[in-house]
Amino acid sequence: MAKTAITPTRAEDFAAWYQAAVSGADLAEMAHVRGCMVIKPWGLGIWEAIKAQLNEMITDRGVENVYFPLFIPLSYIAKEAEHVAGFAKEMAVVTHHRLEERDGQLVPAAPLAEPVVVRPTSETVIAESMRNWIDSYRDLPMLLNQWANVVRWEMRPRVFLRTTEFLWQEGHTAHETAESALEDTHAMHRVYTELVRDWLAIPVIPGEKPASERFPGAENTYTIEAMMQDGKAVQAGTSHFLGQNFAKSADIQFSSRDGAREFAYTTSWGVSTRLVGALIMVHGDDDGIRVPPRVAPQHVVISPIVRGEDGAEVIDACRKIAATIDGTTFGPGVRVRAKVDARDKRGADKKWDWIKKGIPLIIEIGPRDLESGEVMVIHRDDINDKVKVPIGDLASWIPVELDRIQAALLAQATANLEAGITYDVTDVAGLEAHFAQPNAGFVIAPWCDSTTCEDVIGKWSVTVRCIPHERGGEPGPCVVCGEPGESVVLGRSY
Amino acid sequence: MAKTAITPTRAEDFAAWYQAAVSGADLAEMAHVRGCMVIKPWGLGIWEAIKAQLNEMITDRGVENVYFPLFIPLSYIAKEAEHVAGFAKEMAVVTHHRLEERDGQLVPAAPLAEPVVVRPTSETVIAESMRNWIDSYRDLPMLLNQWANVVRWEMRPRVFLRTTEFLWQEGHTAHETAESALEDTHAMHRVYTELVRDWLAIPVIPGEKPASERFPGAENTYTIEAMMQDGKAVQAGTSHFLGQNFAKSADIQFSSRDGAREFAYTTSWGVSTRLVGALIMVHGDDDGIRVPPRVAPQHVVISPIVRGEDGAEVIDACRKIAATIDGTTFGPGVRVRAKVDARDKRGADKKWDWIKKGIPLIIEIGPRDLESGEVMVIHRDDINDKVKVPIGDLASWIPVELDRIQAALLAQATANLEAGITYDVTDVAGLEAHFAQPNAGFVIAPWCDSTTCEDVIGKWSVTVRCIPHERGGEPGPCVVCGEPGESVVLGRSY
Repeated sequence: MAKTAITPTRAEDFAAWYQAAVSGADLAEMAHVRGCMVIKPWGLGIWEAIKAQLNEMITDRGVENVYFPLFIPLSYIAKEAEHVAGFAKEMAVVTHHRLEERDGQLVPAAPLAEPVVVRPTSETVIAESMRNWIDSYRDLPMLLNQWANVVRWEMRPRVFLRTTEFLWQEGHTAHETAESALEDTHAMHRVYTELVRDWLAIPVIPGEKPASERFPGAENTYTIEAMMQDGKAVQAGTSHFLGQNFAKSADIQFSSRDGAREFAYTTSWGVSTRLVGALIMVHGDDDGIRVPPRVAPQHVVISPIVRGEDGAEVIDACRKIAATIDGTTFGPGVRVRAKVDARDKRGADKKWDWIKKGIPLIIEIGPRDLESGEVMVIHRDDINDKVKVPIGDLASWIPVELDRIQAALLAQATANLEAGITYDVTDVAGLEAHFAQPNAGFVIAPWCDSTTCEDVIGKWSVTVRCIPHERGGEPGPCVVCGEPGESVVLGRSY
Repeated sequence: MAKTAITPTRAEDFAAWYQAAVSGADLAEMAHVRGCMVIKPWGLGIWEAIKAQLNEMITDRGVENVYFPLFIPLSYIAKEAEHVAGFAKEMAVVTHHRLEERDGQLVPAAPLAEPVVVRPTSETVIAESMRNWIDSYRDLPMLLNQWANVVRWEMRPRVFLRTTEFLWQEGHTAHETAESALEDTHAMHRVYTELVRDWLAIPVIPGEKPASERFPGAENTYTIEAMMQDGKAVQAGTSHFLGQNFAKSADIQFSSRDGAREFAYTTSWGVSTRLVGALIMVHGDDDGIRVPPRVAPQHVVISPIVRGEDGAEVIDACRKIAATIDGTTFGPGVRVRAKVDARDKRGADKKWDWIKKGIPLIIEIGPRDLESGEVMVIHRDDINDKVKVPIGDLASWIPVELDRIQAALLAQATANLEAGITYDVTDVAGLEAHFAQPNAGFVIAPWCDSTTCEDVIGKWSVTVRCIPHERGGEPGPCVVCGEPGESVVLGRSY
């Protein structure tokens, strides 16, 4: 077996491969406060690329960005807890606002009259403001979004996938009618589907969550479910139709067109840095991560191969070549970023650094290549299939090649997803046998939506991922109990 | 006296005018947690424009963006407190990670073994990572920056200027030599000077802080000092040369070129949402804020003046005109953003909304204007000086006009700054008389740098703002005690 850059391989131990791939690509590391992470330049660069694109898609819809406080009064949380079943309580609580030295030790001092909570989501504070800002139907729809850090104390943290602090975007909207709110919920569900498919090259199954998996308090929760290479699901984005539930608990009322006071209909929707985790587990191979070009912080690295005297000259030639590539565009106007890696390090080490980082294209240039006028290009979707390209053609060839790589990664991920879905499981024994296999993937089968049947599959850590909007699946007898049911996606998840 | 849109006027009560201007422009409001603010779309839009430009200037220097955790272990803070005189202790302390219901009340539960602090700055955690990441001189310089929220518990909060939570950028760099670190410190000082002057249209006095006003632990602190319309200073950005002090306390060592272990030289530098406060207090007039075009979230608003039947047609014509303007560029490639305000509201009310928001250009268009082919444009630097422009010329005229407004605001602010500086105070009596005046502005005079003399001016709440790099000022006898001194800027500050 060929030596791989990442140990262990995906097949040997997918969870350990994930940690090794994250660290091999220098994306992030867990910090000294349990469950928090330090996001390093390459990892943050991927998130920033995702963020820039999603921000454009969101604001194009007329949504306005706002910033709400990090801290939430305990009384707001208490109010929500009263209204919301399934309310999660793992949050960071600030109880003091000063440190003092006592006996040479720094200790918390100046207790707060009312403790505050570090936002696990801004639902309650934004609702409170909406109550003040909304007066009549003329103020609706109110479409708000914020990019922020949030905190949910995690007992079993895993970098990017489940961290105590994470970065996300949370949209909150208020509407005059249920139809308008539902339209918004669906529109964001589509935006997320497109973002993840067209930018992260991850095909997803868009659908609706069953009642038991809804966001607490929501009337409907729409999700996009992606499949990792180990067959497990990642819920990659959710969009919630909250009906009038939150408006009633927060008292968000408006004067309607006929002068009556009515409760608004609200929605919320979000994606987080967990998307970076999904990207790694969908596209990574045994040599590291592979970043889809449209969300790559950098697209091309040129590594000068120099020995002794001719060093400066070769580096200078590489810089000139990089300058002809940098700033060209591919896809829907994405700017190509090309740089020279002139670090004082062996060429082979540099090459493997970049392979592990998953940069789409690597070009090594030595004095002979400059003489011949042709260079070998490594493309990250298949590092063994090197291509010889005339230097003069690079600036026109690279944007086309980046489009090809983007499409190739999506095609591979789509093939993996399709291969990972089983449609022919018809009873509970078949289900048990199926999920006893390694990398079992998803089962699509009819489902009765009862807690009894949920408990059966729950024993194997399997859940109903969603009621899919696409990909057929006729109603039929529930795969567990035989009662009438509708088609759902079953699987294990992160 | 003409009625103004903001009450009181600046002359009547500058502090109250500030609050009224912020709320009139719908920039932000104080939140329910004491000292925190909700930043609304127009206020956040200004910050995002500043951020986008500064981020480009920072990353163009080869600095990489990272994201460090919100929480800092108490032990890191304790270690810093040991090393740093003047260490501030007003910070939010997280002591529990769960809420529990007891007797129907939600209360903090699950105490943390070690409390964590919400970052007041990330100096200590970034230093800890640098210690791990830096091995040899090949890893230097290490140039990091992060955009983040930070928390410093504020007893006397004031929106944008002094808030418990604020948004900022903090740069942290490590270098092989003192020269390299100092070069970086100076480079960022220049970047801030240029950002604030060329984008926020605020002229500043760049200089060095006296020892007593340095960042605790820094060897030098460089500042840019701006003058508000009430003559008080805002420290708009700082850049610190930390020598080896922080490297020693955090043990940041590297193998040097000759194989020895040496401590790195570090720097840090930052600006915050306080810049938005400075922008308001420098450019605002009695009708509201005035946003310099280069940092305006939107540049042109077109308000359709409609009565009854012809409404849809006029709105449609306005949209077509906006489309011809939107996407043109001014300054160094800033994209013009033009939108139609089709809200169901009186034309005069809409106009005053936008005047208070300080949008650079307002165009009202009714059926007659469409017939005549000419429109009246209000430019925000002087709302009484309306200009008639042919509709067909708008797309070419507006970018030029935006450049003119940007320059006009800088010219006005520069004239205010110059008028607010006094050079001819020569003794302590003169100083006392000067600062007894309202809107006293700055005094530039020689200074001995003694705490005794600082105490004298401290009684009038006056401090040494900086030792200016430009604008002359010969050494001479200290304005307070007569001992030899060098020229400094004296003033009150926010």
